[in-house]
Amino acid sequence: MAASAPSSSGGEPDPNSTNLRPPGTRFLQKNNNLEEKITSFKERSSKDLLDNSDRDSRFRRTETDFSNLFARDLLPAKNGEEPTMQFLLEVVDILTNYVRKTFDRSTKVLDFHHPHQLLEGMEGFNLELSDQPESLEQILVDCRDTLKYGVRTGHPRFFNQLSTGLDIIGLAGEWLTSTANTNMFTYEIAPVFVLMEQLTLKKMREIIGWPDGEGDGIFSPGGAISNMYSVMTARYKFFPEVKTKGMTAAPRLVLFTSEHSHYSIKKASAALGFGTENLILLSTDERGRVIPADLEAKVIDAKARGCVPMFVNATAGSTVYGAFDPIHEIADICEKYNMWLHVDGAWGGGLLMSRKHRHKLSGVERANSVTWNPHKMMGVPLQCSAILVRERGVLSGCNSMCAGYLFQPDKQYDVSYDTGDKAIQCGRHVDIFKFWLMWKAKGTIGFEHHIDKCLDLSHYLYTKIRDREGYQMVFEGEPQHTNVCFWYLPPGIRDMPDGQERRDRLHKVAPKIKALMMESGTTMVGYQPQGDKVNFFRMVISNPAATRSDIDFLTDEIERLGHDL
Amino acid sequence: MAASAPSSSGGEPDPNSTNLRPPGTRFLQKNNNLEEKITSFKERSSKDLLDNSDRDSRFRRTETDFSNLFARDLLPAKNGEEPTMQFLLEVVDILTNYVRKTFDRSTKVLDFHHPHQLLEGMEGFNLELSDQPESLEQILVDCRDTLKYGVRTGHPRFFNQLSTGLDIIGLAGEWLTSTANTNMFTYEIAPVFVLMEQLTLKKMREIIGWPDGEGDGIFSPGGAISNMYSVMTARYKFFPEVKTKGMTAAPRLVLFTSEHSHYSIKKASAALGFGTENLILLSTDERGRVIPADLEAKVIDAKARGCVPMFVNATAGSTVYGAFDPIHEIADICEKYNMWLHVDGAWGGGLLMSRKHRHKLSGVERANSVTWNPHKMMGVPLQCSAILVRERGVLSGCNSMCAGYLFQPDKQYDVSYDTGDKAIQCGRHVDIFKFWLMWKAKGTIGFEHHIDKCLDLSHYLYTKIRDREGYQMVFEGEPQHTNVCFWYLPPGIRDMPDGQERRDRLHKVAPKIKALMMESGTTMVGYQPQGDKVNFFRMVISNPAATRSDIDFLTDEIERLGHDL
Repeated sequence: MAASAPSSSGGEPDPNSTNLRPPGTRFLQKNNNLEEKITSFKERSSKDLLDNSDRDSRFRRTETDFSNLFARDLLPAKNGEEPTMQFLLEVVDILTNYVRKTFDRSTKVLDFHHPHQLLEGMEGFNLELSDQPESLEQILVDCRDTLKYGVRTGHPRFFNQLSTGLDIIGLAGEWLTSTANTNMFTYEIAPVFVLMEQLTLKKMREIIGWPDGEGDGIFSPGGAISNMYSVMTARYKFFPEVKTKGMTAAPRLVLFTSEHSHYSIKKASAALGFGTENLILLSTDERGRVIPADLEAKVIDAKARGCVPMFVNATAGSTVYGAFDPIHEIADICEKYNMWLHVDGAWGGGLLMSRKHRHKLSGVERANSVTWNPHKMMGVPLQCSAILVRERGVLSGCNSMCAGYLFQPDKQYDVSYDTGDKAIQCGRHVDIFKFWLMWKAKGTIGFEHHIDKCLDLSHYLYTKIRDREGYQMVFEGEPQHTNVCFWYLPPGIRDMPDGQERRDRLHKVAPKIKALMMESGTTMVGYQPQGDKVNFFRMVISNPAATRSDIDFLTDEIERLGHDL
Repeated sequence: MAASAPSSSGGEPDPNSTNLRPPGTRFLQKNNNLEEKITSFKERSSKDLLDNSDRDSRFRRTETDFSNLFARDLLPAKNGEEPTMQFLLEVVDILTNYVRKTFDRSTKVLDFHHPHQLLEGMEGFNLELSDQPESLEQILVDCRDTLKYGVRTGHPRFFNQLSTGLDIIGLAGEWLTSTANTNMFTYEIAPVFVLMEQLTLKKMREIIGWPDGEGDGIFSPGGAISNMYSVMTARYKFFPEVKTKGMTAAPRLVLFTSEHSHYSIKKASAALGFGTENLILLSTDERGRVIPADLEAKVIDAKARGCVPMFVNATAGSTVYGAFDPIHEIADICEKYNMWLHVDGAWGGGLLMSRKHRHKLSGVERANSVTWNPHKMMGVPLQCSAILVRERGVLSGCNSMCAGYLFQPDKQYDVSYDTGDKAIQCGRHVDIFKFWLMWKAKGTIGFEHHIDKCLDLSHYLYTKIRDREGYQMVFEGEPQHTNVCFWYLPPGIRDMPDGQERRDRLHKVAPKIKALMMESGTTMVGYQPQGDKVNFFRMVISNPAATRSDIDFLTDEIERLGHDL
């Protein structure tokens, strides 16, 4: 197994490990789990039969020499089965080893290198492509190195994005999905996955609160595309002629979203031909929640200017503050002025699974469409995002083109299961299986438990730092989601009078700490400015591996790295 | 391993196998490769030590009882490492077993069931989701059953789509990608993958023929989205004000594409606010290639009607006929009338890798943008599609929104590597690694060899059936791509006089044969009508496992199933 492939980098000590070991023992440090497993079986039986077993016999077994094997020797090549199995098991060994280290707090989150360093090529790792094939030995080294120089997004101390964690069931689901390697456009070639998608979407609609889970929906390549679907679908509902005649067939349409909302609504406005100037930003309170009166005032103003208000996005869990817009009050205004209500729950949608926290999305059942990304708060591997639509037919009506070569009406099965024509994609990756499998394995209560635990952890962080010296909260009060936004103030700044100089210095603190964190590789957390607020940390917790000790580690690390800034 | 989990379906004979075996031996038929591997190591060493070894001792080893294990027992749970490794290895065993069967011609391509049958639940396989968790034993059964009732898209006799085959290196790449579970939006969390994307896109642009591989590009979730990017980018180049002011700021814009082109161009016209009526369809010759004079006439006509011709899509490898539009002649017209030239090489782009066949895309270097799907003709697992743009800056200009929380300008590294802002997505799946790894493993010449082999096979099919009794070609002459389009005429139709009755009967032949194929599970090939032509078969070859004997099998099967229709 791994031991068979002496390679330019495979034998080096792993720089992601903070346990320094003497170089002489490095061969045994590879943590080659599959090898150990096989060896242990062997040893056990050897011991059963002959207690005086030769402990070194494991190195005598015939091992695969990958240096003389190439891709062309694998299946479907004649006699390709044995090398294929050996190669895949070797890859799995690399992957399971990586999985184990991911959860090991004594390893680093990342081993940072600048782009030019990786481009120049690390020892034995060269990104350039060439005309001639490389041996499978080199391919295995490349796999190891790709992981070595990457970022462990499942590490208990990785808090950098809304999507963190490495769910084992989800991982198994993705491995299976890749192996099945099919396409969601027709029942014909994805019968099981198409049905899983249908049942799961229905379940999600039931949880939203639409009667009998009726409606429509589809999994899309991320929340930005799901939000784009919502705008397209709304437009089709009110102005179906735009599909054939274009935007010039409609009056001047305007859209509304919070100034704290995700930038994908703006991207959709640009892409779909509305124009970003026709996306009107709504003011928020100090917690980042839309002020309904501001929405109504802006709707009235837009109408007075001859525009037609068509679409309102309410954010359930904003990206930075984790704010939940007041959906009921927004829905009242949407009903009054006949506008489509979309709820962007890409980040906050997961809270619907928690009996304790779902009240934060109260009113979501009044939405016309909802974005909900299981790949964020529910810990499903990327990508897994759903757009759900309350009214049946409008999503298909909006997008269908009835391509004859794919969606033949004269198939032998019920072709209403060929769901591909309601997508803007043709080929569509299978994003459902890992999610379905996780749901099976955890049950609804498993997701609930995960979400409650993450919110408990963020509560722990909030209560820990809100009155702690050197910290200042970006907004007052308990956060609604797991987002905890704060400044760390190094001692040299704490006593400075408020003013431009202090602001300028504080603005540089978070980027510097972040850079030091990445260089030391110990933890990762995001930062950004927002409106007139200078750079602050945004802590988010969606990682199932995180515990209170990891939260403590983060604050210790911030203080350690930031103390002298 | 697998033997440890007696399950409701795990012990059943696999209906996908056409080898009928006596039920008494089924336990040994599980082809449990990992178990065999482990056992074989054990046996070998036992034999080394004590030749009179007990052959049955393998059943005495301690096996993991998954019926009492749940997702919550896996990592990051305390003591979760051992069950995690056992579980993942068990999953890998299921997957490697599936891989082996995929290439085994004695197994079926699929085991067809109607939607209602799967929804009602097969024995031990229930798609419904519940509140409570299932044991890992049930999860493993679900994994086996999901594969059992699916379609083996890598089977040597699966010809149903443009994406076929199961590349082992690509599969390994996908497994690694899932394990790394990161996001392409920033260098910060995907350093290696971002650089791989950059280098690979440059290589593709060099192959297209753009000087020094200059330009821009991005991997997108499929060819339809890539084509959508081309239209958006063209619009931004000519009318950048549309980004802010919407389509009403532009004159009436028209787009052109072949009547044989992929429906994604039409979807883009609808979605982006042009309207499908402003997409003008171009006439083709009998081989499905755009007639340049028709383009010029329609451009002149559009201008006369006060429209502004903006964008022309030339198809390199049409979906049904595999036709290549004459790019040079189209490029001349685009230059003359100042229009953006996009080449949709989703299907045909792969031919650029072949010195023998790349002339079919002659002129592609004159395009402003190119769609090229490695997940089709190059055998990369789904999804892997690139949009390539000749001019730098226009793709970013079109889509960037400079979200502060993600694309901070004050990071410690060169932020020009944060490529996410040029996408319409926010989160973006890592599609590059499997492709990069395949390129490393095969070299450019490996892709060339694959493509030449597929075209040789389609030539074999074409020469075999063009003059064969009972077959009629849909168009005359050697196909340009691997698409071979033909009618099979059962004896009862052959002597009928041409007319509506014959057409009506012939229209029903392909769907009937296809349904019988799927029910017998032996092979799969697509069919469709096109224009005034009734349903015909479209054979496409992109499957690296296919050989002449599989082509022969397909025609035999068509004749067997269709003879009496």
